[in-house]
Amino acid sequence: MSDSRPAPVELRDACIVAAREAIAAHGIEHLSLRDVARRLGVSHQAPYKHYPSRDHLLAEVVRRCFEGFAAYLDGREHFDDPVQDLDSLGRRYMEYARSHPLEYRLMFGTPWPAAAEHPGLARDALHAFEILRNVLRRLHGDGPGQCERVDMDALFIWSTIHGLVGVLDGNCADKLGIAPLVMDQAVAQIMDKVRLGLGLPPACS
Amino acid sequence: MSDSRPAPVELRDACIVAAREAIAAHGIEHLSLRDVARRLGVSHQAPYKHYPSRDHLLAEVVRRCFEGFAAYLDGREHFDDPVQDLDSLGRRYMEYARSHPLEYRLMFGTPWPAAAEHPGLARDALHAFEILRNVLRRLHGDGPGQCERVDMDALFIWSTIHGLVGVLDGNCADKLGIAPLVMDQAVAQIMDKVRLGLGLPPACS
Repeated sequence: MSDSRPAPVELRDACIVAAREAIAAHGIEHLSLRDVARRLGVSHQAPYKHYPSRDHLLAEVVRRCFEGFAAYLDGREHFDDPVQDLDSLGRRYMEYARSHPLEYRLMFGTPWPAAAEHPGLARDALHAFEILRNVLRRLHGDGPGQCERVDMDALFIWSTIHGLVGVLDGNCADKLGIAPLVMDQAVAQIMDKVRLGLGLPPACS
Repeated sequence: MSDSRPAPVELRDACIVAAREAIAAHGIEHLSLRDVARRLGVSHQAPYKHYPSRDHLLAEVVRRCFEGFAAYLDGREHFDDPVQDLDSLGRRYMEYARSHPLEYRLMFGTPWPAAAEHPGLARDALHAFEILRNVLRRLHGDGPGQCERVDMDALFIWSTIHGLVGVLDGNCADKLGIAPLVMDQAVAQIMDKVRLGLGLPPACS
């Protein structure tokens, strides 16, 4: 790929693109700065100007996934009613997970580099989680007495939708004899059950 | 490891043990019959007597995970009351997932070999899912009119608990500023929310 050799000023971003390609092709465990340099047609030393180690590069790849994920969630249809907004957020989360499998796996399905050394990664993961917390704060109130309720509900919603992504896109679901009608309605009906679990009435959709 | 060279009659099982060790050490994508033979100190050809290909060996490794998983679920504390039994089953599932991370990942987190060629794998996955279905049949009734309700509820329960395993054992949960009290109570409280989602009263525990 020497025809796409980047200018130095663009190298920082080009390393991210090459790293994502390398991960998609060979898996996260084979990511190396040497392979990234080879893909970009630059010297072995060049990526080190921007990333002191392979883990720094990986942390930045995953951090940018969270940045894009949060932006995608923020791009949902917004509603003044927090219950409707929660529903919109849940559907948007499912859409993201199923249309961005590599990013989703990097964020939630693979080991991260040591977090303490990459504070930007934890910060951007927190930012994405705050989107869910903020809708729940609008629902339950923002006082200190509501913190635990907000976080428990957030864990429940996140777990259910995260698990539904894993179940629907996993190996098993199509081999269990589940009726197509049930599979087709699973997202909408399970989100209704989540609302019931939160003590809210089911959607009238 | 030539000191543990197995007798031919035991080779079929020994290959499974060696394959699990190889997967634990190097990941599923590096599993090969050649490496398994090397680990067992037998000829390169020996494993082929029992497994025509690497995928046949992998399918048998994963099938045995489902067999052990189903036996573990069956070993839960049983209750005549299906609601209590559902709770016992959910707790047992969480326990298994967190104490058998390799098996859990092989069943639910990695690509399987082509299912059509390995019917035993799909059969044993179905058997594990039937344990959940059977408790729900005791709750909702076993008539044909209840099939869809049983399966939708099963998908909801499975998704929530599967997702909770992923969230609690994943990269993020400890970096989001969630209070320790919330994390400690997450399993019990989220299982209460699942019961609410099913239209059942919360547990009195």
